[in-house]
Amino acid sequence: MSQAISSNVSRTIQTKLVLPPDTNHLGTIFGGKVLSYIDEIAAISAMKHSKTAVVTASIDTVNFLSSAKIGDILILEAVVVSTGTTSMEVYIKVECENLNTGEKQVTTNSLMTMVAVGADGKPTSVPGVIPQTVEEQKLFRQSLERKQRRLKIIESIGGK
Amino acid sequence: MSQAISSNVSRTIQTKLVLPPDTNHLGTIFGGKVLSYIDEIAAISAMKHSKTAVVTASIDTVNFLSSAKIGDILILEAVVVSTGTTSMEVYIKVECENLNTGEKQVTTNSLMTMVAVGADGKPTSVPGVIPQTVEEQKLFRQSLERKQRRLKIIESIGGK
Amino acid sequence: MSQAISSNVSRTIQTKLVLPPDTNHLGTIFGGKVLSYIDEIAAISAMKHSKTAVVTASIDTVNFLSSAKIGDILILEAVVVSTGTTSMEVYIKVECENLNTGEKQVTTNSLMTMVAVGADGKPTSVPGVIPQTVEEQKLFRQSLERKQRRLKIIESIGGK
Amino acid sequence: MSQAISSNVSRTIQTKLVLPPDTNHLGTIFGGKVLSYIDEIAAISAMKHSKTAVVTASIDTVNFLSSAKIGDILILEAVVVSTGTTSMEVYIKVECENLNTGEKQVTTNSLMTMVAVGADGKPTSVPGVIPQTVEEQKLFRQSLERKQRRLKIIESIGGK
Amino acid sequence: MSQAISSNVSRTIQTKLVLPPDTNHLGTIFGGKVLSYIDEIAAISAMKHSKTAVVTASIDTVNFLSSAKIGDILILEAVVVSTGTTSMEVYIKVECENLNTGEKQVTTNSLMTMVAVGADGKPTSVPGVIPQTVEEQKLFRQSLERKQRRLKIIESIGGK
Amino acid sequence: MSQAISSNVSRTIQTKLVLPPDTNHLGTIFGGKVLSYIDEIAAISAMKHSKTAVVTASIDTVNFLSSAKIGDILILEAVVVSTGTTSMEVYIKVECENLNTGEKQVTTNSLMTMVAVGADGKPTSVPGVIPQTVEEQKLFRQSLERKQRRLKIIESIGGK
Ligand SMILES: CC(C)(COP(=O)(O)OP(=O)(O)OC[C@H]1O[C@@H](n2cnc3c(N)ncnc32)[C@H](O)[C@@H]1OP(=O)(O)O)[C@@H](O)C(=O)NCCC(=O)NCCS
Ligand SMILES: CC(C)(COP(=O)(O)OP(=O)(O)OC[C@H]1O[C@@H](n2cnc3c(N)ncnc32)[C@H](O)[C@@H]1OP(=O)(O)O)[C@@H](O)C(=O)NCCC(=O)NCCS
Ligand SMILES: CC(C)(COP(=O)(O)OP(=O)(O)OC[C@H]1O[C@@H](n2cnc3c(N)ncnc32)[C@H](O)[C@@H]1OP(=O)(O)O)[C@@H](O)C(=O)NCCC(=O)NCCS
Ligand SMILES: CC(C)(COP(=O)(O)OP(=O)(O)OC[C@H]1O[C@@H](n2cnc3c(N)ncnc32)[C@H](O)[C@@H]1OP(=O)(O)O)[C@@H](O)C(=O)NCCC(=O)NCCS
Repeated sequence: MSQAISSNVSRTIQTKLVLPPDTNHLGTIFGGKVLSYIDEIAAISAMKHSKTAVVTASIDTVNFLSSAKIGDILILEAVVVSTGTTSMEVYIKVECENLNTGEKQVTTNSLMTMVAVGADGKPTSVPGVIPQTVEEQKLFRQSLERKQRRLKIIESIGGK
Repeated sequence: MSQAISSNVSRTIQTKLVLPPDTNHLGTIFGGKVLSYIDEIAAISAMKHSKTAVVTASIDTVNFLSSAKIGDILILEAVVVSTGTTSMEVYIKVECENLNTGEKQVTTNSLMTMVAVGADGKPTSVPGVIPQTVEEQKLFRQSLERKQRRLKIIESIGGK
Repeated sequence: MSQAISSNVSRTIQTKLVLPPDTNHLGTIFGGKVLSYIDEIAAISAMKHSKTAVVTASIDTVNFLSSAKIGDILILEAVVVSTGTTSMEVYIKVECENLNTGEKQVTTNSLMTMVAVGADGKPTSVPGVIPQTVEEQKLFRQSLERKQRRLKIIESIGGK
Repeated sequence: MSQAISSNVSRTIQTKLVLPPDTNHLGTIFGGKVLSYIDEIAAISAMKHSKTAVVTASIDTVNFLSSAKIGDILILEAVVVSTGTTSMEVYIKVECENLNTGEKQVTTNSLMTMVAVGADGKPTSVPGVIPQTVEEQKLFRQSLERKQRRLKIIESIGGK
Repeated sequence: MSQAISSNVSRTIQTKLVLPPDTNHLGTIFGGKVLSYIDEIAAISAMKHSKTAVVTASIDTVNFLSSAKIGDILILEAVVVSTGTTSMEVYIKVECENLNTGEKQVTTNSLMTMVAVGADGKPTSVPGVIPQTVEEQKLFRQSLERKQRRLKIIESIGGK
Repeated sequence: MSQAISSNVSRTIQTKLVLPPDTNHLGTIFGGKVLSYIDEIAAISAMKHSKTAVVTASIDTVNFLSSAKIGDILILEAVVVSTGTTSMEVYIKVECENLNTGEKQVTTNSLMTMVAVGADGKPTSVPGVIPQTVEEQKLFRQSLERKQRRLKIIESIGGK
């Protein structure tokens, strides 16, 4: 494992305009569309951190707190908040901005685990991360706890 | 709430061929693609049960247990396993079949909560469900427990 | 040619939600969209039967008996009903379900011929099929007759 | 029905570059992709003739005589060759050009029936057509014969 | 450089139906959609001329003179009008046809420079062009002037 | 016209991963894909500034200075740099980052004019802009000059 690097390296922003094909016939965005945006930005963030290709290992529970509709703007921000040997935990914030009012609402916050893979498709080690903001430092400290909770969930649903 | 209906009504199957645009440059499918397939089939299953439009309220932790690559086939099956007043819990199994060997592997199992919405976009009540298979009956019995675990997670990450 | 196998091996189901981008400005699904769904499921079905890649050799006359509109569900079912040396005839049923009323209508039934191809892109032999349902057995018996009708059509339009 | 118009009005050309997402893992275009291109150009051609929206009623047997691969160019040409009260029969030629050699091959020729629909979604009458080329005049004369053959096919597969 | 060839070789036509996913919520087509259609047809035209792969080096100022809306038809025509050692200048006309009225409007005219590239991704020489129509001959004669104007623009914005 | 607002309001960032479907068979991104990304971010930036829908009036000459290939990351930044009565001039920078080396290259810089439109589709007035960075202030001062150059180009190609 190489030297730990700042979380600023992986910090990534996306801005998406909600368009008709992304929405159901009530004009609100599909949950699956948001999930695929989250996966895309988490992958970019993890790739910036690891300088390798990555695959998605898991996504923690996602709660959709408010909806987005045609013409709204989604702002996504992703950052690596903790690392294992080959895995990276990415924190992703999704906010929705109503352009007319300028009002912003949290759509969802989520945590994904991405694994670095080499050209042979096998997991490969990643540098550690040095969290920068207070929020990132808190997420960093609690990462072990989350890892254990994830383990329990896998067991309880007999995932493997 | 109208009379409870059989889980056979919502049982839904999808078969997907993994194609180049769904994959990264290692030729394995994006996690976000699988997540959007899961959301799509969960929505169809919940729409069949409720006969209304639906929105995605949440998805429980998803672990990607094995990957799928170009030329593989994904088989998705979804069924409503429990209901609240306006919400439906949908269980989704995703299997991957290698066509050459005929071998099947679990890609992931997951649980989504979909909420029925009326033409005004507001939550509207749904009929109860009568689980049919042994597996569905087990999931039905444990649904309260899962609801409580979800509540704790929302609190712990200050979701709302 | 290896031993004949049951038609259950190739039986494949798809469920599709009709979404705005699939439809014209009257809100009804494009014929071309349905045709590409039919080709996709026929290919998956033939791949399951042959365990090889396949190409589309022909599609018999398709009549669109009823239309599907935004919010409807299309249910497709495909199965290999007869085989030649390298070709497979796949029968595809497309039904449309109106979610509010639960009413189902036949959208179209069609027959495609898919040819198994090896890694060199050349036709390669396929196992025979043992039809399971009464409908499949009838289609199996009439396959020669259809082959001859197809030949005449090719001649009449100077196809080859 | 208004006055008959020249087939030049509906004559339409498309040129498509075969790209990776349109192809299977052997790099040859999906039959379903070609079918959806055929439906798209037939619809444009029929819309030019009728000045109304149109829906696809049927497509005659399609034989794929040769394949197209990544980097090839597909050239499609469509023209209305006969009309009924509300229906139009569109003839579509698809050729594939290999850019390196400049060689052209017929991919398929096909005939679709499109029906003009008004704003209420109901069939509406179309002008007659005056075929211009020798090929179009031949197709025009044989249209009745084809109509009868189609009817027989519908009966034989118990389509309706 | 091989012998000069007629501009008829590269002349290419596209016809596109404006569909809901191509438009904003006012129902008018995105500028970016038109720009990507222009790039696609310019690439096909340049590929026909050079018989090689091509990359886009530049696009001259594009003015969108009128908009296109859902149900309209875009007609694009592209032709190589001048060549350098490895570059080709492609002229692209975009017209919009309102199907109900049959009225046509210029959407935009533009000029792109495409560079022929070999299998190594490096620029490779192209044959000269012999312009056919009066319009093409005029564009051919003025090409040097445009090349110089482009150079000045690159300098003024410090492009390189 | 309402009070002038800071250019910070319209500043927008996008991060895009270059994927196989965005590229030609040499694995480099299509110019048209980059142009449609530029249009998308310019529209979002102008919508943030004007709080209205917008249409694309023009794009100044775009030079593609370096290419992007599969696995690279494109970073786009857009900001409104000057305004007229109903039009906004948006400056868009596109950089390409090679993930393995961390090296960044300018792909292109461009200027688009977006026009604010009301619910009736007619141009509507926009607030002025107060440029923040030194670069933005320079672009602001030179905007008149560019407007005049654009006018000359429109005249010279007989655009209107
Ligand atoms: C889901 C949503 C409609 C709930 O709205 P609400 O104001 O909380 O409504 P209620 O409190 O009446 O809850 C409605 C139901 O949703 C359930 N629910 C709400 N949030 C939930 C969550 N995060 N996970 C699971 N169930 C949830 C409630 O338990 C309730 O179920 P019940 O009627 O069976 O008891 C609302 O949060 C929303 O619109 N979210 C965005 C949905 C969306 O657009 N998703 C797509 C991508 S953003
Ligand atoms: C289908 C194709 C492989 C047949 O090639 P061919 O040189 O005619 O090969 P063969 O004569 O050995 O025929 C192979 C099989 O295809 C069948 N076949 C060929 N043309 C057919 C047609 N139009 N309809 C039905 N079956 C057909 C033959 O009957 C034979 O079947 P069998 O082995 O079971 O007896 C060839 O025509 C082709 O590549 N077509 C394009 C396929 C394609 O790419 N489709 C997608 C869109 S273009
Ligand atoms: C276009 C490109 C290949 C030119 O490379 P280069 O190292 O400048 O090569 P050269 O100097 O040999 O120029 C090759 C030709 O391109 C022309 N050219 C280069 N930049 C140009 C520009 N901005 N506008 C017009 N023509 C240009 C040159 O005049 C020369 O033409 P000629 O051979 O006819 O005299 C290179 O800049 C590039 O790869 N750009 C990215 C292309 C791309 O991927 N576009 C898609 C989206 S990013
Ligand atoms: C852009 C458009 C609305 C301008 O309409 P118009 O009748 O010329 O309106 P106006 O004369 O009032 O001009 C409105 C503004 O647009 C500007 N404008 C018009 N054409 C322009 C061009 N080609 N380049 C830059 N600015 C332009 C005018 O200068 C004016 O700006 P100002 O209000 O800040 O002074 C009109 O040409 C149009 O609808 N074009 C198509 C836009 C579109 O749909 N694009 C997407 C792809 S086709």
